[in-house]
Amino acid sequence: MNTFRKQVHYALAISHKKKRGIPLAINLFIFSLIALNSLAIVLHSVPEYQTHSELSSFFSSFEFFSVILFSIEYIFRVWSCVEQEEYRHPFWGRIRYMLSAWALIDLLAIFPYYLTFFTTDFGLIRMLRILRIVRLYRFSRYSHALRMIQKAILYTKEELILSYTFVLFALMIASSIIYFLENPAQPEAFPSIPASIWWGIVTMTTVGYGDVYPITALGKIFGGFLAVLGVALFSLPTGILASGFIEQINETKRKRKASTPTKCPHCGQEIEHEH
Amino acid sequence: MNTFRKQVHYALAISHKKKRGIPLAINLFIFSLIALNSLAIVLHSVPEYQTHSELSSFFSSFEFFSVILFSIEYIFRVWSCVEQEEYRHPFWGRIRYMLSAWALIDLLAIFPYYLTFFTTDFGLIRMLRILRIVRLYRFSRYSHALRMIQKAILYTKEELILSYTFVLFALMIASSIIYFLENPAQPEAFPSIPASIWWGIVTMTTVGYGDVYPITALGKIFGGFLAVLGVALFSLPTGILASGFIEQINETKRKRKASTPTKCPHCGQEIEHEH
Amino acid sequence: MNTFRKQVHYALAISHKKKRGIPLAINLFIFSLIALNSLAIVLHSVPEYQTHSELSSFFSSFEFFSVILFSIEYIFRVWSCVEQEEYRHPFWGRIRYMLSAWALIDLLAIFPYYLTFFTTDFGLIRMLRILRIVRLYRFSRYSHALRMIQKAILYTKEELILSYTFVLFALMIASSIIYFLENPAQPEAFPSIPASIWWGIVTMTTVGYGDVYPITALGKIFGGFLAVLGVALFSLPTGILASGFIEQINETKRKRKASTPTKCPHCGQEIEHEH
Amino acid sequence: MNTFRKQVHYALAISHKKKRGIPLAINLFIFSLIALNSLAIVLHSVPEYQTHSELSSFFSSFEFFSVILFSIEYIFRVWSCVEQEEYRHPFWGRIRYMLSAWALIDLLAIFPYYLTFFTTDFGLIRMLRILRIVRLYRFSRYSHALRMIQKAILYTKEELILSYTFVLFALMIASSIIYFLENPAQPEAFPSIPASIWWGIVTMTTVGYGDVYPITALGKIFGGFLAVLGVALFSLPTGILASGFIEQINETKRKRKASTPTKCPHCGQEIEHEH
Repeated sequence: MNTFRKQVHYALAISHKKKRGIPLAINLFIFSLIALNSLAIVLHSVPEYQTHSELSSFFSSFEFFSVILFSIEYIFRVWSCVEQEEYRHPFWGRIRYMLSAWALIDLLAIFPYYLTFFTTDFGLIRMLRILRIVRLYRFSRYSHALRMIQKAILYTKEELILSYTFVLFALMIASSIIYFLENPAQPEAFPSIPASIWWGIVTMTTVGYGDVYPITALGKIFGGFLAVLGVALFSLPTGILASGFIEQINETKRKRKASTPTKCPHCGQEIEHEH
Repeated sequence: MNTFRKQVHYALAISHKKKRGIPLAINLFIFSLIALNSLAIVLHSVPEYQTHSELSSFFSSFEFFSVILFSIEYIFRVWSCVEQEEYRHPFWGRIRYMLSAWALIDLLAIFPYYLTFFTTDFGLIRMLRILRIVRLYRFSRYSHALRMIQKAILYTKEELILSYTFVLFALMIASSIIYFLENPAQPEAFPSIPASIWWGIVTMTTVGYGDVYPITALGKIFGGFLAVLGVALFSLPTGILASGFIEQINETKRKRKASTPTKCPHCGQEIEHEH
Repeated sequence: MNTFRKQVHYALAISHKKKRGIPLAINLFIFSLIALNSLAIVLHSVPEYQTHSELSSFFSSFEFFSVILFSIEYIFRVWSCVEQEEYRHPFWGRIRYMLSAWALIDLLAIFPYYLTFFTTDFGLIRMLRILRIVRLYRFSRYSHALRMIQKAILYTKEELILSYTFVLFALMIASSIIYFLENPAQPEAFPSIPASIWWGIVTMTTVGYGDVYPITALGKIFGGFLAVLGVALFSLPTGILASGFIEQINETKRKRKASTPTKCPHCGQEIEHEH
Repeated sequence: MNTFRKQVHYALAISHKKKRGIPLAINLFIFSLIALNSLAIVLHSVPEYQTHSELSSFFSSFEFFSVILFSIEYIFRVWSCVEQEEYRHPFWGRIRYMLSAWALIDLLAIFPYYLTFFTTDFGLIRMLRILRIVRLYRFSRYSHALRMIQKAILYTKEELILSYTFVLFALMIASSIIYFLENPAQPEAFPSIPASIWWGIVTMTTVGYGDVYPITALGKIFGGFLAVLGVALFSLPTGILASGFIEQINETKRKRKASTPTKCPHCGQEIEHEH
């Protein structure tokens, strides 16, 4: 822990060891910056604030200031990543690090800002501005939320794909049928099968906005049937994901519990359980 | 694997053994054809594409081309099915195969097209065109999605019927009561009990389009009560189906795990567990 | 099985033993009669059928005919109930039987019809007509659906009351708050706390008709918060009921499984498990 | 149990021991007073009752009467709390008791009434009037509903925060994207990101009021995608809370069951189980 690069890497690294002193301060500062920045993006979209010249220029300055800091952080990260075993090579290690998922998200959070200097296409600038919200996901680096969700998805991957495939098939067929039943009665609400898929999703997920709904007797019978079926069908992937997540939690709790061994009542020897 | 019929049967058969060479190519080709075909059906329903003469004729040609190929595939399947033990008889085996669920779905996917030549009834042609979407279900042949869902439904069959019966009774009685309460206040929204069933389903499944809802005080009290009850009631079949599905998944995982036996700590003998 | 009364009691009794010959025929006949009758009640509410004189008179005749038959069945049931051990006494046994839950539902299904002769109050007649739909519940006598639901509710009774109490409190407080927030902005949508409860239920059950919803910024913040919380809160009683129901099912399945005993691998003696 | 203070403390204390005589009567009286009071608050908000002078003055008198009684109860509670071991000190004990959560809720239920004498700000009076509904929560003191929910939340605290964080991130990003997609098409429905969050919550919780919904093709595709994903995402915290609650229930039931020990079939000694 004696060189400056090592210290920088340690300060910026995301680890579960508790930090103290300057590394902790740096972490908290980046934390707050991301949080304030996300808030600024959200608030900057409010029309009243956009037309308010002082507030607008404040948001712009804050944006500029944060991007500079995020850029510095990014450069320091790339520079110091060679401290890690897997990115040890001075050149290829850094390239490999820059292509890692986290580093790409980091880049995606700052890169758009610089791009706005090279374009006058307002639509593009608008899109790039929105893109900055992905910075929020940098938060998940510090929590283990993402990892738990990832694990739960991986654990039940096969079944999730399976049941979503089934849901997709049901959705496609249901949308085709409702299009056939409702299109003659209300051609503006169900103009085509792709448009009917919107109705299918809104019904099967039980969102039910009420912008499109069947009005013919047959359409209502089929729609009612689909709503009942859809609720049951959607419970499959949802239930699977939830159960996978709960499984992950229980696993962790069981492990903690299992560390205290039980003894055989007959001979005093420890017994290993495998449940 | 020496005759042509055997090779055709092998190439078209749905098995979980990995295929290579020409059989794999044929499988992937049929896969892509079904996928593109379903997409074509969905897109062909868009009014802008229907009036666009070039696109429309392209869709028609593609449709014609696919039906020819699906027909050839169907004929080859029927011809080669005798390679299978259960459909061994040259005549009755083929008839029995043609009456099997999968073969009927295959037929349903091509038959409507030929029917359109013999009728000028536009309504019928429209219906037959929609029917082609069932081809999508041919996909499920290749996945084991359908089988898992089937198993889960069979496993919890008794309870599903039981709880759906209860839901149905509750729905009928609730619809009768709301009809009695709301019909005098809004006769156009709740004109009859069958029409009130639509409200009942939309409320109990929590879809809530907002096309019909109670406006009288008593109707709202009863409607609120039903919404609370309906959520709880609908959780029964949904929960059962999901738990049955999860049970199927766990069963498979447990089996894999159970293959490693545990030893008794006293005498070193293996103990069989039955949980 | 030698007297007529015994035969009548056997024919009408609801038991899980398979019946044959005339008792089976009588059971199927009553079954069909209830089903057709319920269908008639539902269809009779359709305005087009009510104004159609022939159909209307057909429904009336069918109604008359069924009530006569249900009445005869009821009389026979009361007459033959003394064959059962618990209703043995010729007079008090029959009175006790008539006051049992099932006999009261039976009476409720025929009694209203006779009442319509003694009143000219159209509102009352209308209500009594709707009441006949409870006949549907006679079906559940034959299935064990009701018993399973009852068991599940009893098994989780304490927790259901507990969580519904909590939901009720949350609902009351949420409705008071939204009334306070939204009443000044839209006094016609949130005129009072009782009216706001309707919004509360529609939101917390995620039905979301869209007839009332917050429009002020604070109201939307609170409404969004309540929707998220409401979904979680409502999952408690719903999850409890579903888990109670699944518990009932597993219990039955476990019992069947448990009948095959396991043997101790050491001494060959049977071991009793208590999970 | 010989001094008056002891008797007062015993009468007002919330314990699970069954009470008899005067203490029971006092408890039931406070119960009824809270229930009637909450009902009065709810009914007093109805405009028809507010303009009805007699009813309004009755509600006011009842309010006055209840606050006096609640105040007396509060004073007695503070006075007698020193009977409890932890609040033993005559002065600091009482201060500590007054700062405990329950005592603060008690105060919050009576304090606002007195405040209305010192202000003429109608908005404030209105808010204070609504605040009185928190009295309802005094009920939960007597039930163990709150404790069970608390336990379930504490038991799954970590996972709840985790999954709600994830939901929040998804909500923020989804709202930004839909704002980007829908704002140009319907600037009044999606005027800013904060306003789009309202749509995001209403969609992801499947409430679906129908006041805002996407109308562009891209917006509908993204909205449909979010609805499907939202249902799955929201199932995580909901499933976790429900499973935590069910876990609490099973724990209690298992404990009751576990009190009957199992004996080893070999030597007759009792075996302790740790599941």
